Amino acid sequence: MTASALRDFSRLCLHTMTTKPWSIETAIARYAAAGVKGITVWRQWLDGKDPKGVGQMARDAGLEIVSYCRGGFFPARDRQGQQAAIDDNRMIIDEAEALGTQLIVLVCGAVPGQPLSDSRGQIRDGIGAVLDHARSAGIRLGIEPLHPMYADERSAINTIRQANDLSDFLQDPLVGVVVDVYHLWWDPDLQKEIRRAGQAGRLFAFHICDWLTPTEDLLNDRGLMGDGCINLREIRGWVEDAGFKGFNEVEIFSNRWWQQDQDVFLEAIKKAYLAVS
Amino acid sequence: MTASALRDFSRLCLHTMTTKPWSIETAIARYAAAGVKGITVWRQWLDGKDPKGVGQMARDAGLEIVSYCRGGFFPARDRQGQQAAIDDNRMIIDEAEALGTQLIVLVCGAVPGQPLSDSRGQIRDGIGAVLDHARSAGIRLGIEPLHPMYADERSAINTIRQANDLSDFLQDPLVGVVVDVYHLWWDPDLQKEIRRAGQAGRLFAFHICDWLTPTEDLLNDRGLMGDGCINLREIRGWVEDAGFKGFNEVEIFSNRWWQQDQDVFLEAIKKAYLAVS
Repeated sequence: MTASALRDFSRLCLHTMTTKPWSIETAIARYAAAGVKGITVWRQWLDGKDPKGVGQMARDAGLEIVSYCRGGFFPARDRQGQQAAIDDNRMIIDEAEALGTQLIVLVCGAVPGQPLSDSRGQIRDGIGAVLDHARSAGIRLGIEPLHPMYADERSAINTIRQANDLSDFLQDPLVGVVVDVYHLWWDPDLQKEIRRAGQAGRLFAFHICDWLTPTEDLLNDRGLMGDGCINLREIRGWVEDAGFKGFNEVEIFSNRWWQQDQDVFLEAIKKAYLAVS
Repeated sequence: MTASALRDFSRLCLHTMTTKPWSIETAIARYAAAGVKGITVWRQWLDGKDPKGVGQMARDAGLEIVSYCRGGFFPARDRQGQQAAIDDNRMIIDEAEALGTQLIVLVCGAVPGQPLSDSRGQIRDGIGAVLDHARSAGIRLGIEPLHPMYADERSAINTIRQANDLSDFLQDPLVGVVVDVYHLWWDPDLQKEIRRAGQAGRLFAFHICDWLTPTEDLLNDRGLMGDGCINLREIRGWVEDAGFKGFNEVEIFSNRWWQQDQDVFLEAIKKAYLAVS
């Protein structure tokens, strides 16, 4: 069922990448002042910082740290590269724990020219290899299927069905699925697979933005909600019908918006959030 | 099974769009001189021409007209638009018959913001509405699933499974599937669905090029075979194992290559065709 309009910002979360020009300190202060309630922290925002201190700063400002972006990138051409990825993911788990979030978003990875089936096996093995570490830290791992246009070098997991299948295989309550409308809106199986994820108790996160026509850049031309063609409210309805009660996370990579005043952008996000999300 | 290398050009076909700077007369002459055996004619190459005359010219030069590109674009916001698309597809069928080819490639269409489920229904109805006309002309209609990054305005049919399902629904030997590696290489179901299309006798055409990393333009940055990450020879093996004996059609949209001398491009295509396709 199509969801009803959102009436307040109690479930609004922003990714620090959405307001890329802002430092973590600025993002926390501005989000909180704007009434945003959640923040998803991208790893590069912690460069040179103490994750524990950043986490405390966010909580003191009234923000919940919804997730940490991003782990994954498991595939590599050789054993050494694969082990390095596993080691890196263990560090990411430690950082997430220090930050005080319970979810890491996995962008699973791919290597151009390496068979996707090989990469998919390495992703499965890589997640499996860090599960014990995640468990001891109390951190969940959300597999985010990426749009097929990123299958060359960002993720060999390109549909929610693959993410569900992989979660089934790993059979661990710590492993689940992240639904990002930008990656998945086109999929004829989307509603069915969201329901499947919900029934398995593994619908971990929900990311929103929009698909622009035309899209001028494969990476950084995402649209503000309502500026594109994604059936946002319908998909949110599917996610909520599947039992999801978490945050609606605004994740917009946009060269256009990053060139604007970020306070103006944040106000536009809030307006679009209530009007169309 | 991965296919063995191609040893000659007896199954090499080029799309006129691949050598965009060339007129139809030049394309026919140059392809024939290069030993290419097939040509797929895009509709705009017939602007102001007599299709029958063009067809004769191609055959006189020793070229088989493998297909006519492109019909489809059935979805529209209102009945009038949908009817206009159906009428246009009947004209396209007439043109294909005059040209002397037996296959039309369908790029099915989509309307930004219109629910994909609506567009999918209109595509099903649109193909159904032109089937009698296609039958009387002896023309087959090949549904080409397009990459999900074109789901906003080019095609609501984005996987080969959808094309197979739609063909099952329409239950007509004139309706089948066109496999283009650019659109489908990422799909974990690709091998299975190619087999399914073959078993149903509906594997109508096979298009090749490559996926570049990075891809800098969503439309016109396709790569020459071997310059990207697609498992070309493996997919050709799947297609041939499924019983396909037709042409390998080179369909490359590339701003880079279109800026080069097209004779040099054609030689590069021939070389890559034998080396990696």
